[in-house]
Amino acid sequence: MPFDLSIDILETVTIIKDFIKTYVFNSGSKSVVLGLSGGIDSAVVAVLCRQILGKKNTHCVFLPDKATPEVDTYDQQRLAEQFDLQVEVKDITDMVQVFTNNCIKEPDTLALANVKARVRMVLLFEYANVTHSLVCGTSNKSELLIGYFTKYGDGGVDLMPLGDVYKTQVWEIARFLDLPKDMITKPPTAGLWKGQTDEKELKLSYLWLDQILYGLERKISDEKIISEVGCSQEDIERVRYMRLNSQHKRRLALIPKIGLRTPGLDWRSPILEG
Amino acid sequence: MPFDLSIDILETVTIIKDFIKTYVFNSGSKSVVLGLSGGIDSAVVAVLCRQILGKKNTHCVFLPDKATPEVDTYDQQRLAEQFDLQVEVKDITDMVQVFTNNCIKEPDTLALANVKARVRMVLLFEYANVTHSLVCGTSNKSELLIGYFTKYGDGGVDLMPLGDVYKTQVWEIARFLDLPKDMITKPPTAGLWKGQTDEKELKLSYLWLDQILYGLERKISDEKIISEVGCSQEDIERVRYMRLNSQHKRRLALIPKIGLRTPGLDWRSPILEG
Repeated sequence: MPFDLSIDILETVTIIKDFIKTYVFNSGSKSVVLGLSGGIDSAVVAVLCRQILGKKNTHCVFLPDKATPEVDTYDQQRLAEQFDLQVEVKDITDMVQVFTNNCIKEPDTLALANVKARVRMVLLFEYANVTHSLVCGTSNKSELLIGYFTKYGDGGVDLMPLGDVYKTQVWEIARFLDLPKDMITKPPTAGLWKGQTDEKELKLSYLWLDQILYGLERKISDEKIISEVGCSQEDIERVRYMRLNSQHKRRLALIPKIGLRTPGLDWRSPILEG
Repeated sequence: MPFDLSIDILETVTIIKDFIKTYVFNSGSKSVVLGLSGGIDSAVVAVLCRQILGKKNTHCVFLPDKATPEVDTYDQQRLAEQFDLQVEVKDITDMVQVFTNNCIKEPDTLALANVKARVRMVLLFEYANVTHSLVCGTSNKSELLIGYFTKYGDGGVDLMPLGDVYKTQVWEIARFLDLPKDMITKPPTAGLWKGQTDEKELKLSYLWLDQILYGLERKISDEKIISEVGCSQEDIERVRYMRLNSQHKRRLALIPKIGLRTPGLDWRSPILEG
């Protein structure tokens, strides 16, 4: 029998909304900037921010390029109407092209995908700087743990409200918030190249990925994960490898220890957030 | 009498070079990409990488724009000749302009300065992706502690060899490595707009800044710092404020705690680097 990943939705939504409000206000700001993708994670974050910060303090931005599926454009428009969101739209195709035209070495598919994610980051922070907002990320726990994001791209944000919520739990929250059903069931995609879907690229469904990650989170033995989830040893190994290999994306750049106290490591400092 | 910030140069240089080599090799790579600015920090990092990784594994890139002082162009050329460095040059003026032309709201001076630093980051990682290199940062301890860097710009790197070395200590290392004397004595500048110098912007010399930070590092009382260093209470308050206010730049994006174990916070994980 699969592990029970169900969550207390009301409690979870309350924690996340309190977190957004507290962190934004403590930083001296009132508003957030966030990138809508047409996918379910950014839709959930947008609606939660809208509910706790209000429409004029939730600056949504949709940044498509030529690889963006038409259904995503449609879905973000419908979402904006349904939840009365403030959305700016800007096509980034030309901006990305500039980095191909001016590259030091011709980028391959992966390098180009990273450029796209980083160009979006630059635009979001530019907008945030001028409006004195924080940039709100939309990564979920499943993506973070296996490194399925671009370092300093979609991973480059000020706060991550869904960072401790597995993808399958995000779906639960989306149903609770009454988001369009077909947005929840459409295949998740990073949208970085045509035809890309997360589950194809990861060679694993989110259902199984979350089950395996949950098993690793609780240090459950591989044997038990295999028998409960129904996955293979090779699936577990692949997830474990992705997690270990992406450690560097989930921490600060490493610094060699030289002085008594080191920035970001052991500097004795009061914690500002409550 | 000022605090004694002198370091054992040979030991420090050894620690830093071992760090670079170990971290690069453990990551499965052989080489680094780093941005030369014409300033002393990137010069020191470039020479140390060149010494420990060799010429062909130290990809230096000089990314000037119209605000870059001529002396910096000259200095990086001279450095490349003197230490036999491999350097690519690319002017980023047009790339930065694209983010002004396509902005959601017209950027002010600060937003534009951040765009410049982030455009450089995108280019460095694009180059690093294609050459399977790590991006090596050049920030020093003084800058890191007061947040004098752009989040996900020059702060967006894979490793920071000088992250625990104060600016005045970087000067010592530069002298030890026999870098041109006038590169060490020229006024440090982030080079983000014409006429900008660090000490003018910070309203404090690096000599005093480092003394104050060293006092804070060791939790020395304000009274003692004032009497030993000769600075004012207001100088200390300003440094303390800059440090507290920039905490968010020295840690991962905050995530609300929801599950048993949270990515980047308390996930139970073996440490890969020795």
